[in-house]
Amino acid sequence: MYSDEIQALFKGKGISIGDRIALSLGRVRLEGELMPKANIGSPRTIVIKLDDGYNIGVKHGEGLRLERVATGTHNIASFPKVRLAHDGKLPRVTLVYTGGTIGSRVDYETGGVSMLLKPEELLYNVPEIQDVADVYVDMLMSTASEDLSYHEWRKIAEGVARAFEAGSRGVVVTIGTDTMHYTAAALSFMLQGLAGPVVLTGAQRSSDRGSSDGFMNLVCATNVAAKSDIAEVCLSMHNKSSDEECALIRGTRARKMHTSRRDAFRSINDRPIAMISRAGAIAYTNDYRHADGGRFSLRTGFEPKVALVKVYPNSDPSIIDFYMDKGFKGLIIEGTGLGHAPVSTKHEEFQWLPHIKAALDRGLAVGMTSQCLYGRVHPNVYKNLRLLSNLGVVYCEDMMPEVAQIKLSWLLGNYDKDEAKSMLNRNLVGEISSRSRFNEYMV
Amino acid sequence: MYSDEIQALFKGKGISIGDRIALSLGRVRLEGELMPKANIGSPRTIVIKLDDGYNIGVKHGEGLRLERVATGTHNIASFPKVRLAHDGKLPRVTLVYTGGTIGSRVDYETGGVSMLLKPEELLYNVPEIQDVADVYVDMLMSTASEDLSYHEWRKIAEGVARAFEAGSRGVVVTIGTDTMHYTAAALSFMLQGLAGPVVLTGAQRSSDRGSSDGFMNLVCATNVAAKSDIAEVCLSMHNKSSDEECALIRGTRARKMHTSRRDAFRSINDRPIAMISRAGAIAYTNDYRHADGGRFSLRTGFEPKVALVKVYPNSDPSIIDFYMDKGFKGLIIEGTGLGHAPVSTKHEEFQWLPHIKAALDRGLAVGMTSQCLYGRVHPNVYKNLRLLSNLGVVYCEDMMPEVAQIKLSWLLGNYDKDEAKSMLNRNLVGEISSRSRFNEYMV
Repeated sequence: MYSDEIQALFKGKGISIGDRIALSLGRVRLEGELMPKANIGSPRTIVIKLDDGYNIGVKHGEGLRLERVATGTHNIASFPKVRLAHDGKLPRVTLVYTGGTIGSRVDYETGGVSMLLKPEELLYNVPEIQDVADVYVDMLMSTASEDLSYHEWRKIAEGVARAFEAGSRGVVVTIGTDTMHYTAAALSFMLQGLAGPVVLTGAQRSSDRGSSDGFMNLVCATNVAAKSDIAEVCLSMHNKSSDEECALIRGTRARKMHTSRRDAFRSINDRPIAMISRAGAIAYTNDYRHADGGRFSLRTGFEPKVALVKVYPNSDPSIIDFYMDKGFKGLIIEGTGLGHAPVSTKHEEFQWLPHIKAALDRGLAVGMTSQCLYGRVHPNVYKNLRLLSNLGVVYCEDMMPEVAQIKLSWLLGNYDKDEAKSMLNRNLVGEISSRSRFNEYMV
Repeated sequence: MYSDEIQALFKGKGISIGDRIALSLGRVRLEGELMPKANIGSPRTIVIKLDDGYNIGVKHGEGLRLERVATGTHNIASFPKVRLAHDGKLPRVTLVYTGGTIGSRVDYETGGVSMLLKPEELLYNVPEIQDVADVYVDMLMSTASEDLSYHEWRKIAEGVARAFEAGSRGVVVTIGTDTMHYTAAALSFMLQGLAGPVVLTGAQRSSDRGSSDGFMNLVCATNVAAKSDIAEVCLSMHNKSSDEECALIRGTRARKMHTSRRDAFRSINDRPIAMISRAGAIAYTNDYRHADGGRFSLRTGFEPKVALVKVYPNSDPSIIDFYMDKGFKGLIIEGTGLGHAPVSTKHEEFQWLPHIKAALDRGLAVGMTSQCLYGRVHPNVYKNLRLLSNLGVVYCEDMMPEVAQIKLSWLLGNYDKDEAKSMLNRNLVGEISSRSRFNEYMV
């Protein structure tokens, strides 16, 4: 909130939040839209959004002149009244807050990034979601997504389960984007037999930037949580670089494919489940699991001693010995092509076969995936692949390497080893499909 | 070649290679195009191409009936006379053969895959390339691409250098597809100041399958080698799943993105250099290095003790200690997002910072890339990234992880450590661009 002094100043000049105003100090003149003031920084700092989309904060003081250029007619809502009043008329949706860019704002005084202080702040820029859902906010944690581990995944899974128990029809999880797809895969296995949608969303750009994608992502995610009969863990992020629609991607099929674009997340080896328009209309584009009244299961067991091991030219296969020595229980190999590793090279130092065999002899579960990401591993095309398959390496079909690693960790944390091995290349929650759809390549 | 007996049989029935024929034995009837017979298998086995594109071999014997259904009017050449006569009128192109699917044929009797026996066999199905170039074949090795290491890369680089010395204007390297992009990147660094094009090509499907992509890939590659003024290492593979055109991709920008599609190779973070039509017409789509009469350098030094280390949730950072203990000289981290690793987690076992710091203190060169593949790492967006950058981690811009690993190996094999570190994120051969072209995402 702006200070009383600043609010009086606005009032005196007939300026409202959202108006186009000019700030002048000497010969410097800045023009932009007057923004609402969040609970960070000085209440005397006036924040305007410049035409290039960036916000800038100017501390009110001697010599600063202020004038209204035009009345606001645009999208920026006047300081929204965050209701959270729970009148029970709209479908109940819980927003589980975990941290990440979507919950951060640049502090215009220090230039640093601050986390939101109150749940209401998440909703400042998206008042419209309260016309769709009766939103409850669960401030579960505030953790950067690169720091999330299975300990946090468990807490999130439990938070989601609690939200459904408390009567939510759907849950939105706001989370950092770096590892959002890993969390989505982990939750897909941990939360089975869901009664409604669990939608992860976040932002590639922080919420103070005009180009932030977080607002629309949150609107789309909330619409799915409030209205859809999907009963799976999904991820809702921009489908294009423009603010047109979000793609709803199955939790076990999503991958972050770009460091910074808003449409960074892609559905690999499967179609997105739906497209969600900016206005919240859901158009289904794939099959999905409906709530079927079946038993909900929350299985949060997790064996962290499962490694992802990438094969590449000149790679040192004794990495497998390292993991064996550390007591690892499983390995997912990111092979080349259809699932290859060097097994017939004449250079002993690059020969993977004896190391893989040793791991299998020691009882580790070993799965094969492809670093190509798209397509399917296949043990019967080349002789070298048959060698590995005959030893007992499990070929993981069209499952992504990262998903296979999480799945094996989850399986070994909840089932005995033989069961885990036999389930690794069997589809549980949409992570494997029996037939590839070739038209879904690189889109 | 078919046996004299079989050839006489064809002659008696007026059947020529390429005709549509029917083979009947009892009630079984097979119809397809009569194929030329390569130098493998029995000369009494008649090979026809079925309508689904697969070849099948039927041993001639009692009861087998043979009839011509239609005269051949299609693409399959009658058994081509492989000239290799070197009349010197066409531009000289050396085809360096290294193995891989493009040089394999299914043996229709055993079902196994055999390697070609003679260089001429590579050209059986593509006689047209001899109208474009005076082709020399160098049967350098026959190695599956997953087994290629820097030892073989050196031999290939030396083979290419020899070919230019001997007067070739361009070189085609036929190679397995699994690690073709790794070899292309290695050759890009090893061979600098080239006088002409070096084009890697191969096949996703073996040459006996109707759907083999190897023929067109070889035609396109040879056209580039014979006609283009590109003086870089590139890779020429299908640009679409149909036989329309090949994309010529810069050696440091290519990645195999699909296990089995013909258009598996994509240009990441950069446009392809050119499109090459089936007829060999070259349309340039990006800048490229022209032969400038500069000094050619063949630098094949290579430090194999450089690892690619992927960061993912629950990943064990002591992997870095393992590489330090083994005397590794460099590490390329595949970070999340803009180049993150867990550095502020409260779970010590997943805390990467002290391990990365130890590696830097020990004098290892450490580079940061993004597992997203697309986009650019950036050390100044988030606090966690600044931490790593301040320690001395080199942020590798928009270079792919696999390319950065090869580049660092090559740098440490040819330059002293400080020089190597300073060159890691400086563009040498097109592996880094200063500005990202966003419209080239996922196409």
